[in-house]
Amino acid sequence: MLCVGLDTDIEKIPEHLLKEEDPIFSFNKSIIDATHKYAVAYKPNLAFYEAEGLKGWSSLERTMDYINKNYPEVFTIADAKRGDIGNTSQRYAKAFFNQFNFDSLTVAPYMGSDSVKPFLGYPGKWVILLALTSNPGGADFQLQDTKEGRKLYQEVLRQSSAWATEEELMYVVGATKAAHLKELRSLVPNHFLLVPGVGAQGGSVDEVMEYGRSSNGMGLLINSSRGIIYADRGRDFAVAAEREAEKLQIQMSAWL
Amino acid sequence: MLCVGLDTDIEKIPEHLLKEEDPIFSFNKSIIDATHKYAVAYKPNLAFYEAEGLKGWSSLERTMDYINKNYPEVFTIADAKRGDIGNTSQRYAKAFFNQFNFDSLTVAPYMGSDSVKPFLGYPGKWVILLALTSNPGGADFQLQDTKEGRKLYQEVLRQSSAWATEEELMYVVGATKAAHLKELRSLVPNHFLLVPGVGAQGGSVDEVMEYGRSSNGMGLLINSSRGIIYADRGRDFAVAAEREAEKLQIQMSAWL
Repeated sequence: MLCVGLDTDIEKIPEHLLKEEDPIFSFNKSIIDATHKYAVAYKPNLAFYEAEGLKGWSSLERTMDYINKNYPEVFTIADAKRGDIGNTSQRYAKAFFNQFNFDSLTVAPYMGSDSVKPFLGYPGKWVILLALTSNPGGADFQLQDTKEGRKLYQEVLRQSSAWATEEELMYVVGATKAAHLKELRSLVPNHFLLVPGVGAQGGSVDEVMEYGRSSNGMGLLINSSRGIIYADRGRDFAVAAEREAEKLQIQMSAWL
Repeated sequence: MLCVGLDTDIEKIPEHLLKEEDPIFSFNKSIIDATHKYAVAYKPNLAFYEAEGLKGWSSLERTMDYINKNYPEVFTIADAKRGDIGNTSQRYAKAFFNQFNFDSLTVAPYMGSDSVKPFLGYPGKWVILLALTSNPGGADFQLQDTKEGRKLYQEVLRQSSAWATEEELMYVVGATKAAHLKELRSLVPNHFLLVPGVGAQGGSVDEVMEYGRSSNGMGLLINSSRGIIYADRGRDFAVAAEREAEKLQIQMSAWL
């Protein structure tokens, strides 16, 4: 159930890698090789690549090629939080599903059905819609009460679950909002959830496992980014990442 | 008040440009040279560049360099609709404000205050927050009634207008939602609005001018993309674009 977030920041990777031709790719490659025994998914966060311009875009391309070639069974998530009018969403779908060959993409719901639907219908690809995010500001609008007595994120679940099957739509629910997981599971008992926010952001794996599993006891991808990839900032970074990934995997396994 | 949207689609640009070394840049350059007399702003839509991978990213970089060098007075908008947890939004800000030197960026509000604030505080740069978008699905959540009797987009205006001054925050309001402009102006009388949706999407310039201006009679950037850049799909595309831009500018001027 473990997803490793590749929020690879050129300012945080070990110094000795900066001499490499493509430090971000070298870092990702080592992290992936070290953690793949314990991880079922990798989630590059697009912002970290875009911030480096053309070079960053190229590091992302190399990372995706490496995963798809060496670990084809692994699930990949473009953490892009896109969403735009129809003809534009279509373009983003083309970029992430065809160009980079990601298995899935995170999408923001604010612009409604016709901003999300263009990402659906790609065979084998998934949309992962933001429902309840892990950041403190997630409460500002997502927990807004509606006239009908739902929270906004519940309204998002209610409407969006009619747009697609459970085989093409997942939801993002932050581990820091675990108190809402029980309620949420009553609305979407079977959908997969991508759960960020354990580790650096303080969410609890045990709470997520207790309340977040789907009706068949699975249905979770629990993501840790900084807690794994920056577990050690020196030469032993990959060994430290492997150890942290193993720890999380053991913690999750205890519930299965 | 005219903003020209550079939604440059390799499948829609005139055939003779496909022989050029960088067709997307060549197209943009001609459009900008032809329309800058009538336009105060240009808005590249990021999806169209991302869809072309590294090449697209490079075309965008060249387009921005060209504008900043030849028309430094022009306002530039990265239509990216980003928004993520704090450390990630910071990265996007770095990408668009520093790397590409855009003057502003469109941001999605769903993740709340701490996803928007990292984009603020860059001297001379602006955040353009989605309020009420031009697409039909914009109604799904943005027009949701809250318990307090506001629409969700009004709640977004209410909260977000406290996060920043009127000199660093604008709002996106679709021309197709002009009926809401009067209400909206009672909440944010002075903020600039970026108004897409005239032209291909069917919004009315006259309605926007009548109800959307700020308290000093200005405060609008009205965007047309496809209606201008694809006015003619042959060799005379730039002349046709100039004519369409002029038409819109005259229509707006009549109200000033």
